[in-house]
Amino acid sequence: MEFKHTTLSNGLVIVAEVNTAALSGAMGFFVRTGSRDETLEINGVSHFLEHMLFKGTDELTALEVNKAFDSTGAKFNAGTSEENTIYYAAVLPEYVLEVTELWTKLLRPALRGDDFDIEKNVITEEIAMYKDMPQWDVVDTCKTLHFADHPCGHSVLGTVETIGALTAEQMREYFYRRYAPNNMVLACCGNIDFDAVCALAEKKCSAWAPGDTPRTLSFFGGSREKQRQTRENLVREHICIMSPAVSMQDERRYAMSLLATIVGDDTGSRYFWAMVDPAIAETAAMQFDSMDSVGVLYSYIRCSPENAKRVLDITRGIFDDLADKGVTEGELGKAKNKILSALTIRSEQPMGRLVNLGFNWVYTQQYRSVADDVAAVKAIAVADINALIAEFDLREFTRFSIGPASAD
Amino acid sequence: MEFKHTTLSNGLVIVAEVNTAALSGAMGFFVRTGSRDETLEINGVSHFLEHMLFKGTDELTALEVNKAFDSTGAKFNAGTSEENTIYYAAVLPEYVLEVTELWTKLLRPALRGDDFDIEKNVITEEIAMYKDMPQWDVVDTCKTLHFADHPCGHSVLGTVETIGALTAEQMREYFYRRYAPNNMVLACCGNIDFDAVCALAEKKCSAWAPGDTPRTLSFFGGSREKQRQTRENLVREHICIMSPAVSMQDERRYAMSLLATIVGDDTGSRYFWAMVDPAIAETAAMQFDSMDSVGVLYSYIRCSPENAKRVLDITRGIFDDLADKGVTEGELGKAKNKILSALTIRSEQPMGRLVNLGFNWVYTQQYRSVADDVAAVKAIAVADINALIAEFDLREFTRFSIGPASAD
Repeated sequence: MEFKHTTLSNGLVIVAEVNTAALSGAMGFFVRTGSRDETLEINGVSHFLEHMLFKGTDELTALEVNKAFDSTGAKFNAGTSEENTIYYAAVLPEYVLEVTELWTKLLRPALRGDDFDIEKNVITEEIAMYKDMPQWDVVDTCKTLHFADHPCGHSVLGTVETIGALTAEQMREYFYRRYAPNNMVLACCGNIDFDAVCALAEKKCSAWAPGDTPRTLSFFGGSREKQRQTRENLVREHICIMSPAVSMQDERRYAMSLLATIVGDDTGSRYFWAMVDPAIAETAAMQFDSMDSVGVLYSYIRCSPENAKRVLDITRGIFDDLADKGVTEGELGKAKNKILSALTIRSEQPMGRLVNLGFNWVYTQQYRSVADDVAAVKAIAVADINALIAEFDLREFTRFSIGPASAD
Repeated sequence: MEFKHTTLSNGLVIVAEVNTAALSGAMGFFVRTGSRDETLEINGVSHFLEHMLFKGTDELTALEVNKAFDSTGAKFNAGTSEENTIYYAAVLPEYVLEVTELWTKLLRPALRGDDFDIEKNVITEEIAMYKDMPQWDVVDTCKTLHFADHPCGHSVLGTVETIGALTAEQMREYFYRRYAPNNMVLACCGNIDFDAVCALAEKKCSAWAPGDTPRTLSFFGGSREKQRQTRENLVREHICIMSPAVSMQDERRYAMSLLATIVGDDTGSRYFWAMVDPAIAETAAMQFDSMDSVGVLYSYIRCSPENAKRVLDITRGIFDDLADKGVTEGELGKAKNKILSALTIRSEQPMGRLVNLGFNWVYTQQYRSVADDVAAVKAIAVADINALIAEFDLREFTRFSIGPASAD
């Protein structure tokens, strides 16, 4: 595997991890923009815009875009988060340039008013659909409660109100401001011809105008508020607990991942043995989400309404025990094996490497090989984890729950 | 990649595709037994037995099994179908032997009576859960309707009645009869030491007694019955259409996969353009399922009850058109790219190769490399597909639908 990179004169960075032995190639545009870069007035525009890119360009109809992907057999997707909008695909090596060229076209969309009006209904239905999924809604709402006025609390989807009021003109303005070439990275992995990709990008993207794309950055420790909402139609209690954690720029993110695995992996974690295995909770998992200058640890727990209080007591007991005694060597060893095996297996496919490669560059302007990541995970000691527990006290959390009226 | 294989004196076959450059290793036991090998009296025992293997052995408790997997960081799983029960894992290379040894232990389970009684409730709840999923239930019930008295019509999960009446003694009898070493294959892929795996298998499995493990084999063209069931709680119409297709032993299975992709892939297929893109159906997909001596093409379509008749008319129109005019070069080229890219990308991970390697041996006692499969797909011509359409008439289908009372 060989790392290569270059920057076009307008600021578009192209990074590649070339592996000519790979059976496929993967490429993607990583645009450094998301709901945290929106004002509340236009909340949801990043995600809506992601949909609009597939509606075509001045030269391509949506139908032609669909057929162009289809004819290559590409596995492609797009996604929007609080701070990134990414467009990526994996294809057979002979289609890498064709699909890369297609992305360069889509990244300069037509944003037609009639497409905008039709897609607005799709987005509104998507918001309604997610609102109907309590396991999703409880985490999303908890995030807003946790972040209070910090922009990372902005919902990715926006609300029915903000999407309803959004105009195509506002979207176009946002697009030209945030989709500047100096605010994005073109990443590619696997069996690709770097020079050919660079020549293509030079030809297709060098006329894109750079711009000023600021982002408000600050760490935030969380509101620590506790709220519960009643939903008559639910039969289960859904609980989200969120506490502060390190950012994507912080080297301690590897240790933070290990801590989340020790506390709340699907199997064999503290949560698992204390709640899931004895059937006190149906599911209980902790995740680490590291972002630009800020991070969170969040837990999602689902149980019967009768067990809600017991679940919160057990969770607090686990946090107290961690604060008092820290983690053990045995726990850390198991967590390392889990993270190393997931990391290693994912990295066997160019598509799996792409996300690492792209985000490493977006956040740290660094290349890290799989071996670098493996070494970083292996180097973590119990004392590193315990120092994190001391600095980021798990007990200082925000909590949001939804469940039926019968619970109190 | 190097193919290796050996057979122990009791008939246990070990096959391997060794790739020392891979970052992980994968291994699995492929047991040639499933619901088609059950009598109706014990229907569901194969799937129930799969659960019981994780309850431990005479030496290992369920807790110890759980912890043993957990400590290696293995990604592991198991699954039961009409004719196979498989147990597999992907791990870092240094844990391949440890996890293989664990599987050899689990393949000789304790089958304790009290574990059996507790797990019976879990299985019963699983049956109820799947019955509540109309998209699953409609396909499962259509399969039973299609296969009539053919054993491939047996439900994998069994019914609340058969599971309720099943005894631990019946399960033990089934286990000793079907889990004979000459009725299973141990497959491994990726960064593994073949000689070490064979030595381990020799030590751990050579005392397993071989047995006579017959299976009733016959092709079946389907009942062609049409039925609809009313479910008051549904708001959508769920339709399954099933027609005969080639078996796993038939070289034409590659052409049959291409036909299913042309007709009913998620995007860009005939179904997609005729029903999903114009929003007449919410989803419409065709799959090809090839089994031992028999196969089916089945479609799942979901739509509003008002559109049900229209959907059936459109589907029949597509089948008529295919029978009259066949497929086009353009369609075939796109379908090849889709299948080749999925096949190639999946095969980049040892875990992805494992399933191909194991099933190829179970069904055909042959090794096929990725290059063999790619060549087979590339060699298919329009005339091959059209010959299949002529022989396996899509219009001679079984249909099962469920939906609300308001539709007729």
